[in-house]
Amino acid sequence: MADEVKILDFWPSMFGMRVRVALAEKGVGYECIEEDLSNKSPLLLQMNPIHKKIPVLIHNGKPICESAIIVEYIDEFWNDRAPLLPSDPYERAQARFWVDFIDKKLYGSVRKIYGGKGEEQEEGKKEMMEILKELEKVLGEKDYFGGECFGVLDVSLVGFSTWFGGLESVGNFSIETECPKLVSWAKRCSEKESVSKSLPDSNKISEFIVQFRKKIVG
Amino acid sequence: MADEVKILDFWPSMFGMRVRVALAEKGVGYECIEEDLSNKSPLLLQMNPIHKKIPVLIHNGKPICESAIIVEYIDEFWNDRAPLLPSDPYERAQARFWVDFIDKKLYGSVRKIYGGKGEEQEEGKKEMMEILKELEKVLGEKDYFGGECFGVLDVSLVGFSTWFGGLESVGNFSIETECPKLVSWAKRCSEKESVSKSLPDSNKISEFIVQFRKKIVG
Repeated sequence: MADEVKILDFWPSMFGMRVRVALAEKGVGYECIEEDLSNKSPLLLQMNPIHKKIPVLIHNGKPICESAIIVEYIDEFWNDRAPLLPSDPYERAQARFWVDFIDKKLYGSVRKIYGGKGEEQEEGKKEMMEILKELEKVLGEKDYFGGECFGVLDVSLVGFSTWFGGLESVGNFSIETECPKLVSWAKRCSEKESVSKSLPDSNKISEFIVQFRKKIVG
Repeated sequence: MADEVKILDFWPSMFGMRVRVALAEKGVGYECIEEDLSNKSPLLLQMNPIHKKIPVLIHNGKPICESAIIVEYIDEFWNDRAPLLPSDPYERAQARFWVDFIDKKLYGSVRKIYGGKGEEQEEGKKEMMEILKELEKVLGEKDYFGGECFGVLDVSLVGFSTWFGGLESVGNFSIETECPKLVSWAKRCSEKESVSKSLPDSNKISEFIVQFRKKIVG
């Protein structure tokens, strides 16, 4: 029996993008079910009763929640191709550390930029650049965070790069000036088929941010 | 060459306790280096420059940070004995989900009880009981969260149980009334050698909480 793979998703979500890219890397087909986050579906509430958040991967009827955990699940279930995590325990721990760093730090700064004004937005920009500079150090001269191969940290960060242009525009700052390697990395990733077919166009994200600010920030 | 294993630790930390219990489960000897968190050592700042937090596992000179990541590292490096994570990908994802739930939710509520007063403390008690009731449902009728065997979720939660008495005392509430199975589980765990030799006496934790409140909360 073929695997039935669904994602409860929201198209601009960088966390949803992780799941889409990971499945594309594995060559696994899936159905995306778009959620209205202002009116969550009974299916979402049933599949993720604890956090009530997207993305949720529903694999043969069983839910897996939290994007970093979903990506590891995908890597472990489809373990015969395109490994996302390194095999060495120490390297795995380092990759997990940086994915966790993104989860704990990066989204909060992004939120302040696209959803904030004045001082809060300035703080978000400062924080975001500090975080990206750390990540640029981790990338170093490598093609991908995974080295020669696109790996779990690439999967986990690449969705954020679709937001870069829109954030720069509303925040009036430049990521490339301070993090040129990271911006080259994002471009390199976007040329991969697994990425290009899984992520929305960055212009659509910019428009989403503009509309969000009109409605929410004022 | 024998492995050199050190933990940068702080004895009342439930996150440090995870690392101690995981190593004990694997039968790995280690040296604990106690940190003064009000005056962090140059070694801690060097080994965990990003978060500057304990615990840090230093294995043959190389640092691994963040307790949940350390526990997975320990399980993967010493993979020939006492498996902590289940082998099935779906069960692994579920175990990781609940460890992550503890990390995202439980400590925050504990902090409000031991470090707060009045309304904040009441809120902490309410939150903590909701969280523990969820965990009690996950435990169900099993001996351990891992089923018949003590596993990663047991390792990750057991340190919190040393705080239960002290929290009940300063918050004037009873965990056992609403979560009797969880309290039996904690007792069952405390009878395991890997746990009893790794965790401080709960009376010492209660005294630590009293002293902390005298100094900080007033």
